[in-house]
Amino acid sequence: MEKIQDVADRIRTLEVKGARKVAIAAVEALQVLAKETQAKSRQEFLDELSEARETLFASRPTEPFMRNAVRFIIKEVDSSDKKKVGDLAKIVSSSSHEFLSNLEASRNRIAEIGAKRIRDGMVVFTHCHSSTVTHLLRKARQDGKTFEVICTETRPVFQGRITAKEMLDLGVKTTFIVDSAARSFMKKADVAIVGADVITSEGSIINKIGTATIALIASEARVPFYVASELLKFDPATLWGEYEIIEERSEDEVWTDAPEKLAVKNPAFEVTKRHFVHGLICEEGIIPPHLIIEVIQRKYPWIFQLE
Amino acid sequence: MEKIQDVADRIRTLEVKGARKVAIAAVEALQVLAKETQAKSRQEFLDELSEARETLFASRPTEPFMRNAVRFIIKEVDSSDKKKVGDLAKIVSSSSHEFLSNLEASRNRIAEIGAKRIRDGMVVFTHCHSSTVTHLLRKARQDGKTFEVICTETRPVFQGRITAKEMLDLGVKTTFIVDSAARSFMKKADVAIVGADVITSEGSIINKIGTATIALIASEARVPFYVASELLKFDPATLWGEYEIIEERSEDEVWTDAPEKLAVKNPAFEVTKRHFVHGLICEEGIIPPHLIIEVIQRKYPWIFQLE
Amino acid sequence: MEKIQDVADRIRTLEVKGARKVAIAAVEALQVLAKETQAKSRQEFLDELSEARETLFASRPTEPFMRNAVRFIIKEVDSSDKKKVGDLAKIVSSSSHEFLSNLEASRNRIAEIGAKRIRDGMVVFTHCHSSTVTHLLRKARQDGKTFEVICTETRPVFQGRITAKEMLDLGVKTTFIVDSAARSFMKKADVAIVGADVITSEGSIINKIGTATIALIASEARVPFYVASELLKFDPATLWGEYEIIEERSEDEVWTDAPEKLAVKNPAFEVTKRHFVHGLICEEGIIPPHLIIEVIQRKYPWIFQLE
Amino acid sequence: MEKIQDVADRIRTLEVKGARKVAIAAVEALQVLAKETQAKSRQEFLDELSEARETLFASRPTEPFMRNAVRFIIKEVDSSDKKKVGDLAKIVSSSSHEFLSNLEASRNRIAEIGAKRIRDGMVVFTHCHSSTVTHLLRKARQDGKTFEVICTETRPVFQGRITAKEMLDLGVKTTFIVDSAARSFMKKADVAIVGADVITSEGSIINKIGTATIALIASEARVPFYVASELLKFDPATLWGEYEIIEERSEDEVWTDAPEKLAVKNPAFEVTKRHFVHGLICEEGIIPPHLIIEVIQRKYPWIFQLE
Amino acid sequence: MEKIQDVADRIRTLEVKGARKVAIAAVEALQVLAKETQAKSRQEFLDELSEARETLFASRPTEPFMRNAVRFIIKEVDSSDKKKVGDLAKIVSSSSHEFLSNLEASRNRIAEIGAKRIRDGMVVFTHCHSSTVTHLLRKARQDGKTFEVICTETRPVFQGRITAKEMLDLGVKTTFIVDSAARSFMKKADVAIVGADVITSEGSIINKIGTATIALIASEARVPFYVASELLKFDPATLWGEYEIIEERSEDEVWTDAPEKLAVKNPAFEVTKRHFVHGLICEEGIIPPHLIIEVIQRKYPWIFQLE
Amino acid sequence: MEKIQDVADRIRTLEVKGARKVAIAAVEALQVLAKETQAKSRQEFLDELSEARETLFASRPTEPFMRNAVRFIIKEVDSSDKKKVGDLAKIVSSSSHEFLSNLEASRNRIAEIGAKRIRDGMVVFTHCHSSTVTHLLRKARQDGKTFEVICTETRPVFQGRITAKEMLDLGVKTTFIVDSAARSFMKKADVAIVGADVITSEGSIINKIGTATIALIASEARVPFYVASELLKFDPATLWGEYEIIEERSEDEVWTDAPEKLAVKNPAFEVTKRHFVHGLICEEGIIPPHLIIEVIQRKYPWIFQLE
Repeated sequence: MEKIQDVADRIRTLEVKGARKVAIAAVEALQVLAKETQAKSRQEFLDELSEARETLFASRPTEPFMRNAVRFIIKEVDSSDKKKVGDLAKIVSSSSHEFLSNLEASRNRIAEIGAKRIRDGMVVFTHCHSSTVTHLLRKARQDGKTFEVICTETRPVFQGRITAKEMLDLGVKTTFIVDSAARSFMKKADVAIVGADVITSEGSIINKIGTATIALIASEARVPFYVASELLKFDPATLWGEYEIIEERSEDEVWTDAPEKLAVKNPAFEVTKRHFVHGLICEEGIIPPHLIIEVIQRKYPWIFQLE
Repeated sequence: MEKIQDVADRIRTLEVKGARKVAIAAVEALQVLAKETQAKSRQEFLDELSEARETLFASRPTEPFMRNAVRFIIKEVDSSDKKKVGDLAKIVSSSSHEFLSNLEASRNRIAEIGAKRIRDGMVVFTHCHSSTVTHLLRKARQDGKTFEVICTETRPVFQGRITAKEMLDLGVKTTFIVDSAARSFMKKADVAIVGADVITSEGSIINKIGTATIALIASEARVPFYVASELLKFDPATLWGEYEIIEERSEDEVWTDAPEKLAVKNPAFEVTKRHFVHGLICEEGIIPPHLIIEVIQRKYPWIFQLE
Repeated sequence: MEKIQDVADRIRTLEVKGARKVAIAAVEALQVLAKETQAKSRQEFLDELSEARETLFASRPTEPFMRNAVRFIIKEVDSSDKKKVGDLAKIVSSSSHEFLSNLEASRNRIAEIGAKRIRDGMVVFTHCHSSTVTHLLRKARQDGKTFEVICTETRPVFQGRITAKEMLDLGVKTTFIVDSAARSFMKKADVAIVGADVITSEGSIINKIGTATIALIASEARVPFYVASELLKFDPATLWGEYEIIEERSEDEVWTDAPEKLAVKNPAFEVTKRHFVHGLICEEGIIPPHLIIEVIQRKYPWIFQLE
Repeated sequence: MEKIQDVADRIRTLEVKGARKVAIAAVEALQVLAKETQAKSRQEFLDELSEARETLFASRPTEPFMRNAVRFIIKEVDSSDKKKVGDLAKIVSSSSHEFLSNLEASRNRIAEIGAKRIRDGMVVFTHCHSSTVTHLLRKARQDGKTFEVICTETRPVFQGRITAKEMLDLGVKTTFIVDSAARSFMKKADVAIVGADVITSEGSIINKIGTATIALIASEARVPFYVASELLKFDPATLWGEYEIIEERSEDEVWTDAPEKLAVKNPAFEVTKRHFVHGLICEEGIIPPHLIIEVIQRKYPWIFQLE
Repeated sequence: MEKIQDVADRIRTLEVKGARKVAIAAVEALQVLAKETQAKSRQEFLDELSEARETLFASRPTEPFMRNAVRFIIKEVDSSDKKKVGDLAKIVSSSSHEFLSNLEASRNRIAEIGAKRIRDGMVVFTHCHSSTVTHLLRKARQDGKTFEVICTETRPVFQGRITAKEMLDLGVKTTFIVDSAARSFMKKADVAIVGADVITSEGSIINKIGTATIALIASEARVPFYVASELLKFDPATLWGEYEIIEERSEDEVWTDAPEKLAVKNPAFEVTKRHFVHGLICEEGIIPPHLIIEVIQRKYPWIFQLE
Repeated sequence: MEKIQDVADRIRTLEVKGARKVAIAAVEALQVLAKETQAKSRQEFLDELSEARETLFASRPTEPFMRNAVRFIIKEVDSSDKKKVGDLAKIVSSSSHEFLSNLEASRNRIAEIGAKRIRDGMVVFTHCHSSTVTHLLRKARQDGKTFEVICTETRPVFQGRITAKEMLDLGVKTTFIVDSAARSFMKKADVAIVGADVITSEGSIINKIGTATIALIASEARVPFYVASELLKFDPATLWGEYEIIEERSEDEVWTDAPEKLAVKNPAFEVTKRHFVHGLICEEGIIPPHLIIEVIQRKYPWIFQLE
């Protein structure tokens, strides 16, 4: 349980961050817990898992990817009829591996599907850095497609620079602009693709601040706007009415020596409504974001059943 | 003529910049020219002025404010029937003073008119730094209005920080955000006000990069979007079909150590269509931007007559 | 069967009205029929139920809530393999109870889910009176939320006054306006929530006249527009192409002493297209209205199977 | 001056109301003042007029029609070079007559121009009661046009009933609806025409509450929306930044026995932006509302020159 | 296998064209193959079918209707546990019949459902010729509905003329216009209905060039736009990222003696986004196009499982 | 007067058509009338001119260009103080020449101004054939600009083919499409430019059927839409409420052997609202179409003064 507490602390303090990394850290903590458990009975072990879940869930207001990972593993244990703690611990281990390898498979599937949408000569507009999106573009390059990328710098912490470097490494012609220049450059784009941090039951996408503006601008210029994301970014709590709480980050990221009385606001994310999303490129194919809960229902029904 | 050349050089190298400062520098150079002229006849003096105009006009692709200043002074000389060079030089001097004092009067008039639109409790959204806008807000404070301001940092050179400081100095509660957060904060605003660098015959506004996005976002959220600007920012050449050339600034402003192959694009301005502008707050009152050439026709008809 | 006829008559003459009350009256009539039946055989009893259904369905062009109630009870009887009339009558009774208690549970679930969307300081815009919506707002108050309500009077019969009174009773600060003032007040709202009388297969919402205008106005001002409704307001006949017939009420509601030749039109309801609905808050969670037939398919599949 | 004070009081207490009636009352008061003046000199008389103007202007926050009437008469006196009080008083009298007869001429001109836009078989949508609009429709009938009218009841004080009666008297087939049914009926309309209380320098129209909603609904359904109004409804103060203050009327008009704590809001007017107005039908023809200040400049330049 | 090759050739050369006719030809070719097969074992027969599938699929880039027909028949054979080739051949025969009769049933079902949406007095706008749409309108006539049709000529090959003739034969009052007149006539329409060639996973509709313009124009005028189509026009490959390739037809269809250097472009189809489609009228009812993959999942799950 | 009658007949029967050609024919007829007049006095001559005007105006419901030509010539005669018929006849002759040479000058001015808006690499979308537009594009070629053109065939009489040929003759790369393909090709365009037949007081443009659709499509794709037209296409009667009557041409142009009962509608023109027009390129520069009456007021004030 110490490992769980430790990981939860590192998540809370943002030492571990990024939806995917947080999920992996939690999965690994559960593996350690299973390996080191002192539980005497199935019930005792289940109680430990339950406590671990609560500790991990409490670490950050919303981290649906991590929560879904924990849900999956506990569901696997829960639904087995094994009695021995050792056997149950093995299920933690095997389901952890299963989760992580499915994660990898999903990302590859998304890349494969999305890469088909990139055609020779296209100009792709993107914002921030999403490993899912850059994976998709890498696949398109591997498939021999020739295309250009326009990417924003993505203030305040310039993740766009990472995207730009990755694109140059792939040999992609890349144009780099300040965030506020997006409307001036959108007309040159054939498609916009961004990632997602959370997907809600209404089909809204929560992603890096600036995404909703890009979506609006793309819509105004009739440029199709796609979101590439694993389905497990879906947060089932939104179905039951919960809001995603938008993380407010440090003022220092924006202005280190800001005047004292100035209210520097630094929300990390924002909501883009389903209306703006032409398609969600996920491991199940390209779907309207409206369908998210139906597709989850078919693919990951356990998401709705626990907690 | 040396002074003229010198000022033109300083404008060309961006040593002097900002529509207002460039205009003042040109006016002052003409004053020097008039004071030091060696011209022997009216015609000779007029030729000198004409040469000065060409030199100044050639210094930067578009600086309508400066060009209109030069046009005004030359028009005054041209339309006088004085014969003596000394008398004509005096006209340069007097019309220079007239121009500069009108400039000041216009700014005050705009502040006075615009300040009436600020009501207690309002939240004003602005972008970049415009002395016309901050003058207007200062007037509103002097009139005893209590309001808040949301301002963007305005990458790449953070002019929003100047705006923020000026607002804090006025005792205005100020919220400061990255440019890409504009859509997340627009719903809190009651009005958006920005300045202008150029106004075209179609009623489009050319202003700092990002302005057109703010306008689009304001329009989407039903927030009235105003432009506060002196009428002399109007460029008559646009009536005759000329495009404003958008200045492309140094890559270094955006990313000092950008990867070599990266195409960093740094346009300083962008065009906002008249459709997005609820009203142009100018020295002649609050008008639809569609009317710009009619109002100029009444107030500054000489703008169309020379060149 | 007399009871059935009697209830059908009272529905026809609008003596009983309101989707929920009509449904309850029909359920109770079926209970009486089951209690007093003289049927000799299963078949005879089924025929009686069938006749009752036809009588009830014929009472008003569209009352999907009532129709779905009748469908549910008959389906329960139909699918049992009991032979004795007494046993079947008991099924009518038990399924009636089940239906009514599910109804209550759905409403509570909707209140619970929707209340989470009400945040402190919010201004909620509503139209007409919907017990589902006021139940939701009551729950939000019980959860300790502080919010304001703007409600329209809802001509011609001023149901908005009921809403206003209920809100004041909850201690909610309430603003009351004429219907046509909605656009002037929408900018102050953070969210709009209304109820529904019918939901169609396309995801359109049929609700009190004026609803579609509120939806349009909310959309224009970027205010999220939610519909709170039990899924059983869905009318399966719309899937098969039927139109909902909009009830035309008495002219007297609008103008008691209208000039003779004047064509006073008084449609009670109107259609709001799915495009305007950010989310449908139903007992299954907050969903895009586009999904209605899929969610019904999972939750109440029998709706599609009978008739 | 007593008469002036008396009229000002009656305007203040809403005893006299309606743009046109208020203007006429003020003109008549000036006529009385001129008739009964005890002034000994031109200057004394001018001072009296000036005082009268201030008294009348102070009676209600905005009544541009009345203010323009007063401006006209004083301008006429002011610009004459007569010295004798008697002669000046005659100018008050003659210019009063001129103003009132021009008023009548303008209304007829608007009717004549607008009636041409009514074609056989058309359905005209209108809101509230505007004598300018009904005059226009009467002219269309006199020209032998056959058309229908849809009119809203216009809560809270049902001016739509006056419109309905006038239309029936003209033998026009008329449909009468509650305000909130406008969107359900707009698709049947070929054109929407409303009046105006005030026109601003930006080309916005201030008219009865509900007008902006009708405009939005017409725009959504591609139904041309026209405003029929005398140019003298223009308020020159809006050019200099003033807001029109929207009159808030008694709660009793909305709900006579409203619960005590309820905030009943009853704004009489609202602003419709120029964007929604296809054309302003005025005495100078059918013009885009954007042009209002230019057309005034040509037709009534004195509006801008005094005060 | 010769028959297969022959049919594939005729599809490739456009000798056989039209989604429905291509599908029927392929089904019939499979029937011949099954009748004449020389296969010795189940496996050999399955291999033959597999080869046939590849040959047929390769005949034209996208023909989802035909592909789905082939998928259905092979799935039926595949999932049977019969061993004898004769028995399997019978399954080809029976499933072919089943497919074709389902096709007919679907079309009738669509006509029945859609006809309910046609009300007396309606004006229906349509484009090109779709047998599904004209079947629907025929049913409406048979149901005794009186309505009008506006149809476009549909350049370059004037399929609108076929529609016009069919409508006149039904005794329907028909207005015929050039394609570019659509916006001038849309306001007279109460509903627009078109067919489809392909439906994608995002809910987009691919249909005759001009359809997307009709959809845009209908949307602008608030005219509901419906698509009538069998669900089997859905192309499962779009779910996995494939684009539909838009067929480019001969220049001669547009201009037989075009100047040599002129680039005459003649795409046969274009994409209409789901946003513009009020409802998809299919054999499963009237659904939002967003739901296509869910409804297919329930009705034809085998579409996703093979290939 | 015979000549006048003859020209009027040829206009009526469409023997002479095209705004410019009709205007020139009328001007030439007036020249003949002036040459052959038998009038004995100024008054008699003025009466003849007056009769000629009525005859010419009656020839076609709306031909503003021709009407403005006639107005100009008669105004010139009218405002001279000559008494002798011979002198007045000379004025007809000289003003005719003036009108025709101004016409030429205007077209050249439009070409010069508009050509500046064509930049290297641009794709220009156009519809129908407008000599003003092709003149503008020719000037751009002469100025050394390299650009492409997309043009529609423009059913029913394929004027787009004339445009295509003229563009190819200029060495411009040209793409030719059917009218209904406009939305599929608009995204490739950088600007759309069309001509005009009539301009109204509201700033609406009346041009070849299909223009309003192109405008809508351009607006949707954020492609600036310009109208190139001489100001004298303005019809002053629209200011006074007149509608332009849209000419309905022969059915045979659309379908020579159409079924008897078919209502083939063939309106030659349609109205494009000012909202869609980014700029009107006229001899006075590039202006918002909203300003048309103000610019006419300055340039051709006599248009409003006669009739």
